[in-house]
Amino acid sequence: MSASTPPPPPQPLPLPRATVARLEAVLSIGAHLIPHPRKAASGGEDAFFANSDAGGVFAIADGVSGWAEKNVNPALFSRELMRNSSNFLNDEALQVSHDPQILLMKAHAATSSIGSATVIIAMLEKTGTLKIASVGDCGLKVIRKGQVMFSISPQEHYFDCPYQISSEAEGQTYKDALVCSVNLMEGDIIVSGSDGLFDNIFDQEIVSIISESPSVDEAAKALAELARKHSVDVRFDSPYSMEARSRGFDVPWWKKLLGGKLIGGKMDDITVVVAQVKTVVVPEDEVQGGDTEEQKGNEQGAAAVVAYKMNDEEVA
Amino acid sequence: MSASTPPPPPQPLPLPRATVARLEAVLSIGAHLIPHPRKAASGGEDAFFANSDAGGVFAIADGVSGWAEKNVNPALFSRELMRNSSNFLNDEALQVSHDPQILLMKAHAATSSIGSATVIIAMLEKTGTLKIASVGDCGLKVIRKGQVMFSISPQEHYFDCPYQISSEAEGQTYKDALVCSVNLMEGDIIVSGSDGLFDNIFDQEIVSIISESPSVDEAAKALAELARKHSVDVRFDSPYSMEARSRGFDVPWWKKLLGGKLIGGKMDDITVVVAQVKTVVVPEDEVQGGDTEEQKGNEQGAAAVVAYKMNDEEVA
Repeated sequence: MSASTPPPPPQPLPLPRATVARLEAVLSIGAHLIPHPRKAASGGEDAFFANSDAGGVFAIADGVSGWAEKNVNPALFSRELMRNSSNFLNDEALQVSHDPQILLMKAHAATSSIGSATVIIAMLEKTGTLKIASVGDCGLKVIRKGQVMFSISPQEHYFDCPYQISSEAEGQTYKDALVCSVNLMEGDIIVSGSDGLFDNIFDQEIVSIISESPSVDEAAKALAELARKHSVDVRFDSPYSMEARSRGFDVPWWKKLLGGKLIGGKMDDITVVVAQVKTVVVPEDEVQGGDTEEQKGNEQGAAAVVAYKMNDEEVA
Repeated sequence: MSASTPPPPPQPLPLPRATVARLEAVLSIGAHLIPHPRKAASGGEDAFFANSDAGGVFAIADGVSGWAEKNVNPALFSRELMRNSSNFLNDEALQVSHDPQILLMKAHAATSSIGSATVIIAMLEKTGTLKIASVGDCGLKVIRKGQVMFSISPQEHYFDCPYQISSEAEGQTYKDALVCSVNLMEGDIIVSGSDGLFDNIFDQEIVSIISESPSVDEAAKALAELARKHSVDVRFDSPYSMEARSRGFDVPWWKKLLGGKLIGGKMDDITVVVAQVKTVVVPEDEVQGGDTEEQKGNEQGAAAVVAYKMNDEEVA
């Protein structure tokens, strides 16, 4: 035995606080709306919202114009539906489920305007999964490495009569929605729009514009402007006129004999949302604490945008 | 206090055993394969499997024919990939995750043949969600109430050169797969196939045949036979020839002046899987115990079918 006492055990060095972080997928979102040429004064009947919080959420509603014949402004329903969708994002149940079909159910139930609308809602999970609920003929495509790799199909009762969320009992509900999801990767581009976009522009044109645009904002504007140009071009063989002919609609037989065929763009309200998937590093503290600065940093600037064209805005 | 003791507490009556049951979505699956006319003797290079256990799983692989130039039989890779996919269904991890992308990863890793193939794997969750992983240009469409309401897009490097799972390092892997899912309802019809189907048949034709067919087996056969008929019709303006023209391929200018254009079907192996979503009532005991009789009851009869055409089978 030694006469001296053992030295005190070494004290653990104070470690620097561990840096814990994880990757989260977020959306950078741009949007552009051009009303139907004859509806420029009223702003048209499309509406949308974009919200960069919690990964990224956007929605588009296209008010069904037939309501004008009943002296109802078709824009009121689509605009209120979008306002309500945006408001319900803060709903606790929705923040847990992050389910676009539930958001559609709640927003529809809260909408008191008379009318109906086609609608699409898309929500990005932090893991990169885009969840989609769609009723009617709004469209959504995903472009990866220069090609359309995912797209959803319109639902309609018959040609030019889409499924629609309505103030009336005979309309569709969230239960009739096409509900699907797609796993996205960093760099993927989402192009969504009302039928005014996809009736007037081909996939190759979309891919080409996306490849040339320096930002999601400019891509959305360029897509809307090209669709608008085609929509008023009576000589453009548009996706709409090709679809109409394939359904048996065409010019009378004597015009066919002269080489004529149903052709031209389709004038309509045109709404375009372009979103790009980005990955951000989120420190664990912030992960637990809620939204981060990065998540809010999109081209829209503000956390939420609910929009439609008003009288005093630029129209085309 | 009373002098008498209290009566014994009443004994609970023996209740009849509660009947606990829940609804599960399952698939009824039919399939049909017709080899390329010039590959009838060898059975062609497509392969597929269909398995009605655990809701329903099917897969299609289309061997890339370019391997024949290197004296490799292009059918070996696609057939082994399908056999391995079928075998890994019993893998414990897969039974938990029920993830087609993981199944593709495992099947690919286990495949030792030289070659490459496009591939699609689809798995139905008991809740009705169809999960899909696809590499290349196999297709899948969902038909609800007489219309195509969901379809996936082909991925390709350039026209006629699809993404492909390969024995070589430069090929694609499960990481390159398009991974998506769609919520299905009772009665929904899934039509999936190799590009030999979708290059030769239009959506309206698919919808029409589905509406006229008394069973998934007969629907698969009728779709394959119509695609086969179009594929050898040099006057049929097929989806393939329309796509080729839209990519800038066409007949020489002097033929165009004479009114000619690139036209005709595309001869190829044609594989078709048609599946219908059904709902079955599953007693809780069986839910816990595993697969039920109903889940096995599909038109394939057996629990699993791994198939490709052999020399002695009917070809068309």
